[in-house]
Amino acid sequence: MSLDAVLSRIDDDLPQSLERLMAFLAIPSISTDPAYAPEVRRAADWLVEDLRGLGFTAEARPTQGHPMVVAHGGEGGRPLLFYGHYDVQPVDPLDLWERDPFDPQIEDTPEGQVIRGRGACDDKGQLMTFVEACRAWVAVHGALPTRLTLLFEGEEESGSPSMVPFLEANADELRAELALICDTSLYDTETPAITTSLRGLLGQEVTIRGAERDLHSGSFGGLAMNPIRVLSGIIADLHDQAGRVTIPGFYDGIPETPAEVLAQWERLDFDATAFLGDVGLSTPAGETDRTPLEQLWARPTAEVNGIRGGYAGAGFKTVLPAEASAKISFRLVDGQDPQAIRTAFRHFVETRLPPDCEAVFHDHGAAPASRMDISDPAFEAARQALSQEWPKPAAYIGAGGSIPIAGQMQQTLGMDSMLIGFGRSDDQIHSPNEKYHLSSFHRGIRSWARILDAIA
Amino acid sequence: MSLDAVLSRIDDDLPQSLERLMAFLAIPSISTDPAYAPEVRRAADWLVEDLRGLGFTAEARPTQGHPMVVAHGGEGGRPLLFYGHYDVQPVDPLDLWERDPFDPQIEDTPEGQVIRGRGACDDKGQLMTFVEACRAWVAVHGALPTRLTLLFEGEEESGSPSMVPFLEANADELRAELALICDTSLYDTETPAITTSLRGLLGQEVTIRGAERDLHSGSFGGLAMNPIRVLSGIIADLHDQAGRVTIPGFYDGIPETPAEVLAQWERLDFDATAFLGDVGLSTPAGETDRTPLEQLWARPTAEVNGIRGGYAGAGFKTVLPAEASAKISFRLVDGQDPQAIRTAFRHFVETRLPPDCEAVFHDHGAAPASRMDISDPAFEAARQALSQEWPKPAAYIGAGGSIPIAGQMQQTLGMDSMLIGFGRSDDQIHSPNEKYHLSSFHRGIRSWARILDAIA
Repeated sequence: MSLDAVLSRIDDDLPQSLERLMAFLAIPSISTDPAYAPEVRRAADWLVEDLRGLGFTAEARPTQGHPMVVAHGGEGGRPLLFYGHYDVQPVDPLDLWERDPFDPQIEDTPEGQVIRGRGACDDKGQLMTFVEACRAWVAVHGALPTRLTLLFEGEEESGSPSMVPFLEANADELRAELALICDTSLYDTETPAITTSLRGLLGQEVTIRGAERDLHSGSFGGLAMNPIRVLSGIIADLHDQAGRVTIPGFYDGIPETPAEVLAQWERLDFDATAFLGDVGLSTPAGETDRTPLEQLWARPTAEVNGIRGGYAGAGFKTVLPAEASAKISFRLVDGQDPQAIRTAFRHFVETRLPPDCEAVFHDHGAAPASRMDISDPAFEAARQALSQEWPKPAAYIGAGGSIPIAGQMQQTLGMDSMLIGFGRSDDQIHSPNEKYHLSSFHRGIRSWARILDAIA
Repeated sequence: MSLDAVLSRIDDDLPQSLERLMAFLAIPSISTDPAYAPEVRRAADWLVEDLRGLGFTAEARPTQGHPMVVAHGGEGGRPLLFYGHYDVQPVDPLDLWERDPFDPQIEDTPEGQVIRGRGACDDKGQLMTFVEACRAWVAVHGALPTRLTLLFEGEEESGSPSMVPFLEANADELRAELALICDTSLYDTETPAITTSLRGLLGQEVTIRGAERDLHSGSFGGLAMNPIRVLSGIIADLHDQAGRVTIPGFYDGIPETPAEVLAQWERLDFDATAFLGDVGLSTPAGETDRTPLEQLWARPTAEVNGIRGGYAGAGFKTVLPAEASAKISFRLVDGQDPQAIRTAFRHFVETRLPPDCEAVFHDHGAAPASRMDISDPAFEAARQALSQEWPKPAAYIGAGGSIPIAGQMQQTLGMDSMLIGFGRSDDQIHSPNEKYHLSSFHRGIRSWARILDAIA
């Protein structure tokens, strides 16, 4: 079988694959620090050269910030777009690293061999799993398995300011039938996953204003309204005893998670106690009539991310503050319109204002949730392919956070994404001593070969 | 009549009284700044010399900080202790002063002549009203009207750290039948006042702790408890719809304000709308079944003076914070035990903690309320004397804030205080361009002469 030949080639070529990855990891492509701009550029050029060697027409395209690497290759078959990013997080605090973050090395650990270095997992190691799968395919077959476009971003760790304009300006060139994104994790060390739903995010800052200035709590206390009290009352009202958000209309239009998905989540046997135990907690605090995984993946939230008011320094100051503020964010799910939620929240606040208080709102970002259409047979084909590579069957999972690129692909290119990645929860991305398991890298390459074989 | 002779003497001597006050005000006795310690000492020495000229045995007694000026004089009659302070507030921001704060001068204003300079009101001008009354008395009668002890503090503006130890160490020497304190204000420009009740103050900081560290609101939101939400719920629960504090036992033991005092407050015709209007408010926010003056003077409060939690800087950070804190203070009234309130508040918090949250308490100061026994005939005699000097009858009033010296006199010397002062609410004490009306100074001196005549 030809797939077997590709998989063998991957196994045989692993030492060379690792050498290439090490060279790539050694480039300190920190996108957020302007001092590293030449290194970011060097990483883009490294990719361009490597991809040209595989027969892609590749180039580093200019943007207002760091370049986009765009490569095209292959003919016929199902057109696919693969996305990854070649920039990395800063390395501070440097003194917590046990070695130079840009002098990567393979280390033996009790959990097996790992590749240690900044970007080993996020996202250089992950994106190279796909490139290496392509390389093995070309080596065996002399050509790519299907018409492929690769898109590698250099600004993912600094907010992706150029992504939407670039997608819009190059929509016809980039559009494919499906996007493949390699920037997520395994469900657990033995269970691969395809992320099929992502929560959206809406940020809203609210300031409650009372008196014109801070007042003396002795001279005015008892007679003047305290904005902290008003704000606290509003926040306390946001949830009912069952953990539900009480903003009118908040849950309107949210579809129930399909029964087969819920059943599959049930089989994952998620250990909420262990998950919470890792951070010193024990008890799920969301909607009491939802399972822990639903609370995390399929249900919207209202959270206060920050609050401030009055005097919060050392000691005590008997001030009755003129204002108090909170930063509140909502994780959104499929069916929720961010703007409608914003409007409903403002109304919720305004109807709770006592005399002498006003609310001032400051809007932050609004991104809707994404849910992929898993009725596309490619999803089930990919899930089967992954299941053949890993000890346990692959799962469709949700993500509690947002992965903006998936939503951007849907909105600008009208294209669903298949999010498949091989990271582990303890890979310390964004932290010192980032690593990527050698098995993640090796099985990741083999996984993409299987998936390309199944869906191309 | 001999009182008339004293009052005439006061009128005739006013230019010299002002000269003395100007010399005293010119000494920058800022107690909180160590650089000014020699000036604080100079102000104490100035007082000692002036008082010795009146026949007092006066000296500056050492403390751990700035000296206490103690003077004794007079014989027979009712022994009285007079208290004032000769230190002043810092003058920052200096650029907002329209003249050198320590080059005092008399200015014409639309509201009449004022003495402008740091300490003009707080408290050099006020304490000199009593000294000048004594001077006139001595000039007319050749002796003081009664046995007098004067106590002038040099640390009032920096927290009075030496006061309680000094009172305790010198209790027998300082104890009298009544203390007179001149560090308060008129009720309004035409109505003098004797402050007969002072609210106490209890400070309590509470921190609600949840997870071991800040969490990502995408990864954990919906499943992990948010300490800001818990803290907000506790704060929101502190008051009911009628503005009452809901801590069990909070109002236990509080006596009702005597009917005659309430009736007198009623006659003051307090304009809550104007009082609140000055700071941009309009609506009393305390207990709905209490008058505004009761809310300010006779009823306890629970106020949040500060709150913080999570990310409160610029922009947004989708963090689910590990903890949230609030600084809460209670203004206490007669009958409330600060320690019992502290215990009840802690219990109130602890019974509202969900799983995975703990409360950590940090205690701040606890001072009980003071209420003077106005059945002592000296109070009514002083009120009548004040009423003869000013356009409108004098009032017994309460103070929403605390004046620690009054409570300290009660606790260490077992002595009530008669708090009488002649400041106005717009005297800008603690602020740039502090002033004291010439009429406050002149009528203040005359007021003390009348009071000494009535009660000595």
